[in-house]
Amino acid sequence: MKNAILASTSTLHDQKYLEYLLPEIKKLYSGASEVIFFPFARPGGLSLDEYTEKASEAFKMANIDLKGIHEYSNPAEALENAEGIFTGGGNTFLLVSELYRNKLMQPLREAVLNGTPYLGTSAGTNIAGLTMQTTNDMPIVYPPSFKTLGIIPFNINPHYLDPDKNSTHKGETRETRIKEFHTINTQPVVGLREGSWLEIMDNKISLKGSLSARIFEKDRLPYEVDANNTLTDLN
Amino acid sequence: MKNAILASTSTLHDQKYLEYLLPEIKKLYSGASEVIFFPFARPGGLSLDEYTEKASEAFKMANIDLKGIHEYSNPAEALENAEGIFTGGGNTFLLVSELYRNKLMQPLREAVLNGTPYLGTSAGTNIAGLTMQTTNDMPIVYPPSFKTLGIIPFNINPHYLDPDKNSTHKGETRETRIKEFHTINTQPVVGLREGSWLEIMDNKISLKGSLSARIFEKDRLPYEVDANNTLTDLN
Repeated sequence: MKNAILASTSTLHDQKYLEYLLPEIKKLYSGASEVIFFPFARPGGLSLDEYTEKASEAFKMANIDLKGIHEYSNPAEALENAEGIFTGGGNTFLLVSELYRNKLMQPLREAVLNGTPYLGTSAGTNIAGLTMQTTNDMPIVYPPSFKTLGIIPFNINPHYLDPDKNSTHKGETRETRIKEFHTINTQPVVGLREGSWLEIMDNKISLKGSLSARIFEKDRLPYEVDANNTLTDLN
Repeated sequence: MKNAILASTSTLHDQKYLEYLLPEIKKLYSGASEVIFFPFARPGGLSLDEYTEKASEAFKMANIDLKGIHEYSNPAEALENAEGIFTGGGNTFLLVSELYRNKLMQPLREAVLNGTPYLGTSAGTNIAGLTMQTTNDMPIVYPPSFKTLGIIPFNINPHYLDPDKNSTHKGETRETRIKEFHTINTQPVVGLREGSWLEIMDNKISLKGSLSARIFEKDRLPYEVDANNTLTDLN
């Protein structure tokens, strides 16, 4: 049993935090009055409390109280009883390090596999894949492992960016980076553009939003999948 | 004793591989007939032999033979006797993993500290810092540590990119990423733009090329240092 939304980004250009996801949030957490927030990715160095406050403001629009996982005396128990879970974006290395340090990677995985509604944005989406190895983030801290929740049988590259044909910059394009990933690793990678999300209902995985996603499989040319198609057979 | 060139990139727009660095290469390795190449970063998934071949072509313009470190039966001994060393760019996680796996991180460090002329480009420059934690690369493999050569007392961000004020993309800017790095780490970071390099002569560190570099220190506003100034006191 799974019920999850994995969004490329929390925020669209010229919109407020989580604004475009509000209808999905209302649907996903329907009936819930309190949702647990994982603020560990701390975007821009926000404190856990500051980040929880920011996310709470947005969730008020859906009449949902958000409580930071760091506020619970027994976080593992809180997860078992959670009505819903939201993991926000920021730095994926920090998020994964803190999940392991607080011994919450496995409890979080179990909660999601047991059907607790889960929303991830950016780093919170990245960790739903098999590993965090297709993150765009800087390795600001050394996590004990790159292995993540494995709620879906592939990896995600959030904030997927098409190569800029006019660029004179010689840093690797996103496509080159994912190609390098596939010289060593075998799982497919879904390049999820900003404004796209994956909807996971039990074992069905659907691409939502208005954009196509770019799919990278080892030893195959990358290809596009249009919105409202399923990715259930990708593994 | 140190004698090193640490370049942001191997290649400038509309130029050939290493073309703009050719005068520096001739000066750095003056008198050397053979230089050892570290191809471990394997850009775009090139094989070790393919990458060595590519770099050899460029070094022929300086009348220098390049030999891949993987071609030596005793690489540590080869490093001790090397006339010069060049580490090319690609994926920093892969480069660092392979340096540790081949037990070459320490011998490489010693060779550079003993004055063996060293050229790094991109990933090869990143590893000259205290840690690889300000790389832009994807974590395609899990290295045993993020600690690197520490030839200089700070970190480098190669291919430094200024924020694009017209961008509607919500992924973190480079500056935001480095700010997040400084919420956890204390060493300064030099944002080295493409076309810039650091020249290390004993303990003197000079910024070369025509561009300024952007310096990030913990709890300070970022600032610019103009070309031909020294960074000797940055630590």
